[in-house]
Order: sequence, then C-alpha cells, then structure tokens
Amino acid sequence: MKIDGKQMRTVWIESDGASLGIIDQTLLPHRLATIRLATLDDVARAIVTMQVRGAPLIGATAAYGLWLALRADPSDEALDDAYATLIATRPTAINLKWALDEMLAAVRNRPRAERAEAALRRASEIADEDVAINQAIGCYGLPIIEQIAATKKGAPVNVLTHCNAGWLATVDWGTATAPIYTAHDKGLPVHVFADETRPRNQGAALTAWELGHHGVPHTVIADNTGGHLMQHGLVDVVIVGADRVTAQGDVCNKIGTYLKALAAHDNNVPFYVALPSPTIDFAIDDGLAEIPIEQRAAEEVATVSGRAASGHIETVRIVPDGSPVANFAFDVTPARLVTGLITERGIVQANRAALAHAFPERAEVRPKSNRKVS
Amino acid sequence: MKIDGKQMRTVWIESDGASLGIIDQTLLPHRLATIRLATLDDVARAIVTMQVRGAPLIGATAAYGLWLALRADPSDEALDDAYATLIATRPTAINLKWALDEMLAAVRNRPRAERAEAALRRASEIADEDVAINQAIGCYGLPIIEQIAATKKGAPVNVLTHCNAGWLATVDWGTATAPIYTAHDKGLPVHVFADETRPRNQGAALTAWELGHHGVPHTVIADNTGGHLMQHGLVDVVIVGADRVTAQGDVCNKIGTYLKALAAHDNNVPFYVALPSPTIDFAIDDGLAEIPIEQRAAEEVATVSGRAASGHIETVRIVPDGSPVANFAFDVTPARLVTGLITERGIVQANRAALAHAFPERAEVRPKSNRKVS
Repeated sequence: MKIDGKQMRTVWIESDGASLGIIDQTLLPHRLATIRLATLDDVARAIVTMQVRGAPLIGATAAYGLWLALRADPSDEALDDAYATLIATRPTAINLKWALDEMLAAVRNRPRAERAEAALRRASEIADEDVAINQAIGCYGLPIIEQIAATKKGAPVNVLTHCNAGWLATVDWGTATAPIYTAHDKGLPVHVFADETRPRNQGAALTAWELGHHGVPHTVIADNTGGHLMQHGLVDVVIVGADRVTAQGDVCNKIGTYLKALAAHDNNVPFYVALPSPTIDFAIDDGLAEIPIEQRAAEEVATVSGRAASGHIETVRIVPDGSPVANFAFDVTPARLVTGLITERGIVQANRAALAHAFPERAEVRPKSNRKVS
Repeated sequence: MKIDGKQMRTVWIESDGASLGIIDQTLLPHRLATIRLATLDDVARAIVTMQVRGAPLIGATAAYGLWLALRADPSDEALDDAYATLIATRPTAINLKWALDEMLAAVRNRPRAERAEAALRRASEIADEDVAINQAIGCYGLPIIEQIAATKKGAPVNVLTHCNAGWLATVDWGTATAPIYTAHDKGLPVHVFADETRPRNQGAALTAWELGHHGVPHTVIADNTGGHLMQHGLVDVVIVGADRVTAQGDVCNKIGTYLKALAAHDNNVPFYVALPSPTIDFAIDDGLAEIPIEQRAAEEVATVSGRAASGHIETVRIVPDGSPVANFAFDVTPARLVTGLITERGIVQANRAALAHAFPERAEVRPKSNRKVS
C-alpha cells in the first residue's frame, strides 16, 4: 500500500542485504517509524512486543527471522534453537508454525553453506505469496460488497471490522481489508466501523490509521457499540480476520470477535472471516477446546498509551492500584456463527467438508494432532 | 457504604444546610474528592459532566437540584426553568424524569414560601427511598448467589457486571452490586468480573474501586472478554443495572450490555438486571424503537484519561487525528434475553404482565405516551 505516496510493505530486506526493516506498529497512529532487525533475537523481540503483529505478518517475519539465524550460524543446533525461539513468541496464531515448518522443509536437507540462501529464498516466497493471497481474497470478497451496494441506491456499504486485519497485519493488502480496499479502489462507496479493540487498540490505532491514509471513510467506535449499530440497521456486513481456523471452521480471532458474531447472528447481518489458507489448522477440530488462548500482561488492560497534550506518547493507568486484571488475547467464534470464509480460493463454507474440498492438499497431509491445550 | 472506615453516601446535604455534597466521580479511582454544589447550575453541570452519574443517583441529585433552585427563587417560572434545565442534562435514564415529576407534584400546589422546604423534604425522601430500595434488591438478589454457591463446593461464585451499577451509581448500596455486597457480607465467596466499560471506563474506575474498598474479590477485564469467559464456564451469573426498563421488559443500559446478554444466552448463563422501580418506564413498550440513546462527545472515545507516571491525571489520544468517532452511550437488551429483573418487590419476569402485576400502581396510572424518539 502507499503511505504518503511511497509504496510500502510491512516487512522488507534492508539495503545491506543482511537485515530486515519493519514498521514499529506500537508507535502508530502517532508516528510512522521503521526499525532494523539484524538478529534472531531482534525478530523474536519484535514479535513478542507486537512491533510486528497480525497472524500473516508474524508468519512472514518469523520466516525471515530463521534466515537471519542461519546467516549467523547454519548448524542444525542453531536451526533448532531458532525454531524453538520463534515458535514460543506467540501461541495462538497458526501462521507462525506454518511458516516455520515451511522454512524447516526448505533448509533441512541442504548443506550448511546453502542454508541461508535457501532460507532467504523461501522467506521471500512466503512474503510474496501472502501478497498474492490477499489480492485474491480482495477479488473473492468484492462481490459481497458489490451485491450489498446494488441494494443501497448509492448509500455507502457499512462494514464493521474488529482489530486490525489490514495491510499492517499482513505483508500487504490485509485480509479483512482486502475486499474493502478492492471495492473502494473500484469506486464503490464503502464506510468502515472500526472497533477500537481493547486492550491494545489495534482498531483505533492501526485500522483507522491505514484506512485514513488510503482515503477510506471510516468511524472509530468503542468495542461495546457494534451490537447497537446492528440492531439499528447501521451495519451491512461484518468482515474480520483470523489467527487460526480449525478443520471444522471454528474461528479464533482477537478477543471480542465472538461477541460481534453473536450480534450479527441475532440481527441477520452476514458475518465473514477473511483468511489466507496458512491460517487453517487442519490438525484440530474443536476451536474452543483445542486452541491455546494467549494471556498477556495485566498492564495492557490496566494502562492505555497514547499521545499526551505535550505531543509525547504517555501511558496512563485506568485501573485502581491493587485491582487484579485478566487479559485473554483471543476468543473462538463457533463455525455455526460464520456466514463464510473468504480465502484465496473463493468463499468457503465454515465446515469440514467445504474446507477439505477447497484445500485438499492441506486437509490430507496434516495428521490429527494429539495436542490438547488449555 | 464505608470508605476508609467512614460512612458515606454519594450525595448529602452540607453542614451549611444550603448546599449539596457529592463525590467527584470523574477523579476516581485516582482521587477521592468531594465537591459542594450550591446552585441549580452547579447541579446541572455535575450531571452533564458525569461528576455524578448512574440512573438512581442522577434522579436523587436532580431532586436536590430542584430544591436548590426553589431556595433561590420559588416562583412558577423558576420551577419550570429548573425542571427544563435538569431534564435536559441526560436523555436516557428515566429516573431523572421520575424524580423531577415527583418533585413537581410535591411543590406545585404549595405557597411559594413553603416550596423550598417541601422540596427538601421530598428530595430527602427520594434519597432515603433509594437506599431502602437497594437494600431490598440486595435481599431479593441474595438467593440467586446462594443457590449457585450451593453447587460450587466452596469455590467462589463468579459474577460478571458491566459499567457501574454500584453504590456510586445510587445513593447507597448500588443496584447490581446490592446482591453482591449482601452475599459478601454474609460470608459467601463471591468474585466479580468487572468489564472496564469503554469509553468512560466506569467498570475499571468505579466498580473495581468500590469493590476493592469493600474487600470484594474482583478482576478487571476488557469489554471484549466476557464472551470468552462464559464459553469456558468462568461466569456463573451476569448482574447489570439499567437506565430504563420498558413496560414489556426491554432493558436500556450502558452500551455493550446487549453483547453480554447475547453471550449469556448462548452459554446458558443467567442474565439478571437489578433496578429500582423508578427505572421502569410504563409509558413505552419497545425499547429499541422508543428509548432515546444519548450520543456523547467524540473525545470520550478518542481519548483516555488516567494517572500518568508523574502521578498527575493526564488525557492521551488513541485515535488518529482526522478519524471520525461515534459515541453511543447506551444500548437496549430485548426482554427475551433477560432471565429476571431484581427489584425492590422481588424478582420479576421481564414481560408486561409480570411487571404490571408487581407494580400495579405505576402500570395503571401512566398513560401511553405518543413520544417517538430517535
């Protein structure tokens, strides 16, 4: 996407050919700053602190992280260590595991001298594939917006989204935003309600920022608001992203997604989930029982960061001293509440047969895992 | 309730006998400061800026405000002006109108010389009645918690609440919190999940603060979290307050309440609403169509106030400059999602017949209004 006229991706190789560039997403929307990541530890830290976030972007960045690790040390031990370090950064999104497994397959049986080069090649492919996948999601999602627009006599199509499944969450285009950008660029009138998405405010900080820079009309709302809007006919369609989708179509996404899915269901508003196929985990079925839900630091709920009157970024505490806090980062929306999954191979029903039919090569090769996680 | 060992109400007559005292709730949880209100305008400003808030407390404070107005000028014109000024402060809670109508009836046909005294008498009764009502709500709500406790073998009963329907929202005890305080004081193990309640964070700032000062175990969560907790059996019962309940049992309460009601329904968690009968508006039926939903300033969503590292209260901006914001303050939970209404006359089913049976004197005298509001 273009930011201030300049074409940008969210992760790139720096001109030294030996390090990565990323946007520090923790400073948005107040400042657009880039960071150079030169080592495996730099990459792991950037993922843990959410300087890079979003399931697809985490996968691509981790793939490049394995390249940086192998540049420094191409041994089997270093490869295993790097895999272990990166897989531990975030537990919920499956794209991370998918990308690391792809990298492992690409380098494992190669001579050490060739590993770094092979890793760079596969990581770059993963990044390019993500861009192509999201463009395809945009194409397949476009008719959803076109069909609603046809009924609205020129009034904007109101899309509600949660968190940031935008280009900042991917290498480019975004998942949930791909149909929105595609429709907007075609001249369709689209307006987005962006949930602010506490506790980290990715909707207010990132989705509103990228929509604004692209010129897409939008309105930021508190997370509590979507149900009221749907009751009053102010939302035509919900489109969200996903951090993991199970073989039976359960959707794990940012905490609060399930509440919006319930409201969409209660008000006959279509609820779509946009995702690249690496987000599908064919090894598990029951999202509620089997997907590990990351619990993050209490400070994310107890405090809020933003731009103070001074212009500096400050952090303010909103919870009384001594009050405990819980911070679950994701929830699971059961497949029964999902109208359709927008993928790079078209819109797929959220059930086992449809997913296996759309992605037979992945549905067959993945063994049923015994993993049972809390 | 006691704060630091001192018995407090949320509104009181100051020792000069000519002004009100309130807690400035906009400074909580960081500072417990009181304010003296000496004039009608002081009272109106305190309600608009939410230094006092909560449907029952707004009603009681406005009643005292009419007394202050009549102290200054007991004429019919001053009475009409004061009524108009106070009724315009907040549009959604019906307790405000109820209290002002009660005051009007108490002073209207009296000689001017007697009006201020009559107003003070009725306002004080309204405040005392609110305390008695909430104690009764606590008694009638207690068995709900007792019955759950009987099944939990000593484990705490987990109550989820939204916004602040605590003693800070009433003259004392609170509505949703009355059964919680009653159970806690009886020695039952109770733990409260307090939704932070964006955009104004009344759950984090007020509910957590008052529960903490009373010693009730609690955990603050982002508003997005309740659905996930209910899916995993971590919530035994939801108890919220109300700003207005219609004749057919629709519940208007803080924005986001509807989303929690949907999650409770989807997970077979009982969803109770605690309210004093002045919250019931027998003049309207359809909450979605007929209750005016207050829209408040964009700044409440675009910014967050809290305690900075310096110790000062600071306001930080979290939304990009130029991004529009919508701020609906309330939503409506349809009666079909409500397990029961906890009132001062017992637990009442959320339907017309049950409400009319429980409060026949109010159901009969209220004419059907023609008012149709957006």
